[in-house]
Amino acid sequence: MSNSIGKIYKLTTFGESHGEAIGGIIEGCPAGILLNTQNIQYEMMRRKPGQSAIVSQRKENDEVKFLSGVFEGKTTGMPMGFQILNSDHKSADYNHLAEVYRPSHADFTYQSKYGIRDYRGGGRSSARETANWVVAGTVARQIIPEIQIHAFVSSVGEIFLKKPYQDLDFSLIEENAVRCPDHEVAQKMIEKIKYVRKQGDTIGGTITCVVRNVPVGLGEPVFDKLHARLGQYMMGINAVKGFEYGSGFCGAKMQGSAHNDLFNADGSTQSNLSGGIQGGISNGMDIYFRVAFKPVATLMQPQTTLDHDGNLIELQAKGRHDPCVVPRAVPVVEALTAMALADFVLLNQTKRI
Amino acid sequence: MSNSIGKIYKLTTFGESHGEAIGGIIEGCPAGILLNTQNIQYEMMRRKPGQSAIVSQRKENDEVKFLSGVFEGKTTGMPMGFQILNSDHKSADYNHLAEVYRPSHADFTYQSKYGIRDYRGGGRSSARETANWVVAGTVARQIIPEIQIHAFVSSVGEIFLKKPYQDLDFSLIEENAVRCPDHEVAQKMIEKIKYVRKQGDTIGGTITCVVRNVPVGLGEPVFDKLHARLGQYMMGINAVKGFEYGSGFCGAKMQGSAHNDLFNADGSTQSNLSGGIQGGISNGMDIYFRVAFKPVATLMQPQTTLDHDGNLIELQAKGRHDPCVVPRAVPVVEALTAMALADFVLLNQTKRI
Amino acid sequence: MSNSIGKIYKLTTFGESHGEAIGGIIEGCPAGILLNTQNIQYEMMRRKPGQSAIVSQRKENDEVKFLSGVFEGKTTGMPMGFQILNSDHKSADYNHLAEVYRPSHADFTYQSKYGIRDYRGGGRSSARETANWVVAGTVARQIIPEIQIHAFVSSVGEIFLKKPYQDLDFSLIEENAVRCPDHEVAQKMIEKIKYVRKQGDTIGGTITCVVRNVPVGLGEPVFDKLHARLGQYMMGINAVKGFEYGSGFCGAKMQGSAHNDLFNADGSTQSNLSGGIQGGISNGMDIYFRVAFKPVATLMQPQTTLDHDGNLIELQAKGRHDPCVVPRAVPVVEALTAMALADFVLLNQTKRI
Amino acid sequence: MSNSIGKIYKLTTFGESHGEAIGGIIEGCPAGILLNTQNIQYEMMRRKPGQSAIVSQRKENDEVKFLSGVFEGKTTGMPMGFQILNSDHKSADYNHLAEVYRPSHADFTYQSKYGIRDYRGGGRSSARETANWVVAGTVARQIIPEIQIHAFVSSVGEIFLKKPYQDLDFSLIEENAVRCPDHEVAQKMIEKIKYVRKQGDTIGGTITCVVRNVPVGLGEPVFDKLHARLGQYMMGINAVKGFEYGSGFCGAKMQGSAHNDLFNADGSTQSNLSGGIQGGISNGMDIYFRVAFKPVATLMQPQTTLDHDGNLIELQAKGRHDPCVVPRAVPVVEALTAMALADFVLLNQTKRI
Repeated sequence: MSNSIGKIYKLTTFGESHGEAIGGIIEGCPAGILLNTQNIQYEMMRRKPGQSAIVSQRKENDEVKFLSGVFEGKTTGMPMGFQILNSDHKSADYNHLAEVYRPSHADFTYQSKYGIRDYRGGGRSSARETANWVVAGTVARQIIPEIQIHAFVSSVGEIFLKKPYQDLDFSLIEENAVRCPDHEVAQKMIEKIKYVRKQGDTIGGTITCVVRNVPVGLGEPVFDKLHARLGQYMMGINAVKGFEYGSGFCGAKMQGSAHNDLFNADGSTQSNLSGGIQGGISNGMDIYFRVAFKPVATLMQPQTTLDHDGNLIELQAKGRHDPCVVPRAVPVVEALTAMALADFVLLNQTKRI
Repeated sequence: MSNSIGKIYKLTTFGESHGEAIGGIIEGCPAGILLNTQNIQYEMMRRKPGQSAIVSQRKENDEVKFLSGVFEGKTTGMPMGFQILNSDHKSADYNHLAEVYRPSHADFTYQSKYGIRDYRGGGRSSARETANWVVAGTVARQIIPEIQIHAFVSSVGEIFLKKPYQDLDFSLIEENAVRCPDHEVAQKMIEKIKYVRKQGDTIGGTITCVVRNVPVGLGEPVFDKLHARLGQYMMGINAVKGFEYGSGFCGAKMQGSAHNDLFNADGSTQSNLSGGIQGGISNGMDIYFRVAFKPVATLMQPQTTLDHDGNLIELQAKGRHDPCVVPRAVPVVEALTAMALADFVLLNQTKRI
Repeated sequence: MSNSIGKIYKLTTFGESHGEAIGGIIEGCPAGILLNTQNIQYEMMRRKPGQSAIVSQRKENDEVKFLSGVFEGKTTGMPMGFQILNSDHKSADYNHLAEVYRPSHADFTYQSKYGIRDYRGGGRSSARETANWVVAGTVARQIIPEIQIHAFVSSVGEIFLKKPYQDLDFSLIEENAVRCPDHEVAQKMIEKIKYVRKQGDTIGGTITCVVRNVPVGLGEPVFDKLHARLGQYMMGINAVKGFEYGSGFCGAKMQGSAHNDLFNADGSTQSNLSGGIQGGISNGMDIYFRVAFKPVATLMQPQTTLDHDGNLIELQAKGRHDPCVVPRAVPVVEALTAMALADFVLLNQTKRI
Repeated sequence: MSNSIGKIYKLTTFGESHGEAIGGIIEGCPAGILLNTQNIQYEMMRRKPGQSAIVSQRKENDEVKFLSGVFEGKTTGMPMGFQILNSDHKSADYNHLAEVYRPSHADFTYQSKYGIRDYRGGGRSSARETANWVVAGTVARQIIPEIQIHAFVSSVGEIFLKKPYQDLDFSLIEENAVRCPDHEVAQKMIEKIKYVRKQGDTIGGTITCVVRNVPVGLGEPVFDKLHARLGQYMMGINAVKGFEYGSGFCGAKMQGSAHNDLFNADGSTQSNLSGGIQGGISNGMDIYFRVAFKPVATLMQPQTTLDHDGNLIELQAKGRHDPCVVPRAVPVVEALTAMALADFVLLNQTKRI
């Protein structure tokens, strides 16, 4: 049950980093949608390692094969099974990890909980899993084509994109390797990432996501508020440490007289510190939120760590890893957002009869 | 389905602020637990309005009546129905809201989504609902008595409690009205709250929660990570705008070499930027997280707002409202935390056979 | 989780026979329905003990109180909490059962599973619970007023109503105490029930349910077929031992050439051995099914039974019990059917966009 | 959500008869189980077409490939993705069905519900899906190796196996093509099947399942009673029209004094008309139930049917079909039973702490 998200539009996944394949089953996709598979492959490419100089140079097969639920190009309402083969996984890179728990990874906790783990490449805890989410998220976008979802990198380490999102040109997001829609800031971020990589180090960052043209009425009281669902989905992404929407943590410093969003006569609001969600339900204004990612735990420098027998030993990581995860996490944030919204759109169809 | 949380230890709730009663059904509580009802009533009292000079002076009946699932003082494994009657609700205070949407409240979104709403006191969107959560959370604590959960107010507006939590004495939390375990900072917070109240204004704040003595192995990959569940539960609390755990948003500024938590030989870690959770599973170190609350939207000063007919009108709030929500939200944060942990403890019993 | 049924239209219940109250929470009822509470009370009366000479003479309070989810007479889309107080429960009748397991009851299994049980009146295993179902089922009917659901008693012991349902006048169902729409057969059934009651004995029976005016398209492949859901719901009723729909067990004796339902040009079928469901989805023809109830286990004659300490002792039942459960189970069968159908109608609204 | 069964031990499936593959994801399998894949392949072989002269001569690939959740031969507690490729599916056999609704099939209902369908071989409504269930069921058996599950054919048409199950030697089940553990009756059944096949006709039948060595305490009140779950699972099998357990429909004819199962001093019962389940919970006695299958709808003789345009036309089936489904359904019944029981065993681990 912990391998599924969504209520009507539901994804269930499987797969380890170095198993034969990863994949999933999408349920609840309405019938009759002409599936744009090129679009799916495009989003997979955005998530892929090796796409630029600042991400992992690992090669991953990201070809998605749909096994069911699509007939003559259209969805049939049946579950859509899909898989992505694992290849070029160089398991040998991980043999040295069989008996070792890497710091700030899931090795120790998985081993303790289950008494067994697939140690190759992090197994089930690997971010390889997010490829499954991009598949399901891109299908979700095709259910709600009118809703526009734009995520971008808003900080890398101490380098912040300080402009309000309203002043940004989202068409620039894909124009640079770090996915920051401001050329100048992007260059600084890229340099920073290159710098830490040279040190054998890694660095954290944040992603901001803006959703436009959202219908009024998405989200469900009281335990499935729109922002609670978004928070749940985002907190599930590997390396995420925080989530805020609308005014977020800054809002906690404010007074109500400054924070309240006064209405216009048409039901829209003059300000939008609410972040497009009131009482857990979308109000038609832009939804925006921010997600914090810690620095990647795998360093290209020696670290002291623990082995199965309780010895502290020195570990030298192998493999090809990301110095900073946020550029590749942008399509993942968008995918999860799309899944949540598609689910709420479908749920909303049951509220009146 | 959106009125439930939990998988094994599950709460389903109902109730509007000014209906006859609120209440819920607790499922999955193991059989044979000697129920401490005094403890429940104590936690209800911590959440109650009117408990101090800095919270709403509304009087609420908070007497919990269990209707099932308990026999001769012990849980039977059967669902525990409970209810809390609404009284002293002064619905007349809300008649002027029948045709009006208050700014930054759920009025507009509920009306738009459902075409009808119980406008009295916010109806289902009222924080009155959190009383249900305190009931279920306090029962949850009795399932996992060894786990210690301490929440406290860590900021009000710009006033921050800056000491690391390790330097705090949690026994002081209940010693002042604002629930901040530092006398000096607490006094400043209380003064600030009194000041904004005098202005007819409100103010935001944050709550930090620390969980000690957590067994290793709680949390489920990949969509039900321990921190994702905590985030989901916390984001569901009224007025919450953000959630972070461990290093949180600060972690996003750091480099991996500084962020990684190196092991001790016994499996514990030297630092704990992970916040007691790695790969979504508890590692036995302290869990800690922070929750951001916006300022209460109901001001005791006139505001321009919108009515059903699309007119912008001036609204003067009536009733007795909180100038700052965080002191009363402390037991709510603890209750939800207990529910999540009890659920994971029970789920964990199914992982091996 | 085992106290809930339904996916969109969902009921969660609580309550023991002799606790303070039973009740439940209805989720997913669409907003804006003008609730007919008289209708609910009427159905409760049909289920009530003491309504005729051939059922239990126990007096039960069956007054339903809605606590939420209804505002100014209409549903609001919020969860509908309701409760029914227990009164006149004469718990003292059950004190002699504290240490005894009645034959063919749930006493032994509950005690073994949970290590504790509320022995008064069967506790959670009592058919008192079905009162909750009648509440939720009657609300469900108001969501789908066009669908006609008629259950009736089709056998008591060896006395069978042999006419095909098409030849019956359903308006006669309520004309006699046993709820069989054939005057002559009904009289025989009533006499049989009176006869076994005089012996201190009980007797089994069957209920047939016919559903008319069902829209095409209800039911979901593959694990939530319309008939599988009906079967699941019916098998959950106390004392039920079997379920069949359409041709049922007789169909297992037939050849395909006789069993297939040939089409008419309008999509209807000439015969209807399918029972209105093909591939788990309604085809617009009448749905009909049959439910088998064992004889009530509580006899008014001495029986040998087992106590906690492993002694075989003689037990003499007290209390006021039904000699035959089917007359009072008729509204229960209808209620569960309505819940299943309302749920599928709502689910069906998500299948296309 | 309708493509899943189970709560802790959960199977989610996908796949159409003539798509690229079918498959599923098993969740909740405890960690550390040494997976016996030979056993899985053996059960697949029992379900396979072409295994004997009295079943469909279609050739199906039934090779199961596990893609995740198993490491060095053992389960890891992670979801187990698996797939079975479709091959030799001769889709061309089905082209003539693109515009036609076969009588008593799911063609008309799927088309009406979804507006589109994969008509090849029945698509998602095909019994090919049951291969997925055999995979998950055989894994389930390995979680509960002490529980013995034996299903067998107890009738074909009017030919019944009349001996009580206690008098049967289950080791004979696999000794004949029809899977009836009585040589003489089996021969009659086989001849009957051959006879109807020669006519181009089909025939129904029943399967009885006996479960031994069941621990006391499986099953959950009130909506997830052990027999209700078994009924739900069985009713989901293609062609099933009825389910009864213990005394079943016969029990509905009996009086309580004859039906009650009196206790022995050790908690076992002298008779077992309860079918090993009381109050929805296993009591340690044998569980037994019976499942009714209608005759296969695809006949090898011309039938009048309906096309998309509302014309009644004559249809001549092609392909290779089963004249009687029960011999191949035996392992399917066992598989579903094992899944239900494994789920309840795991759930039961959460009932006490």
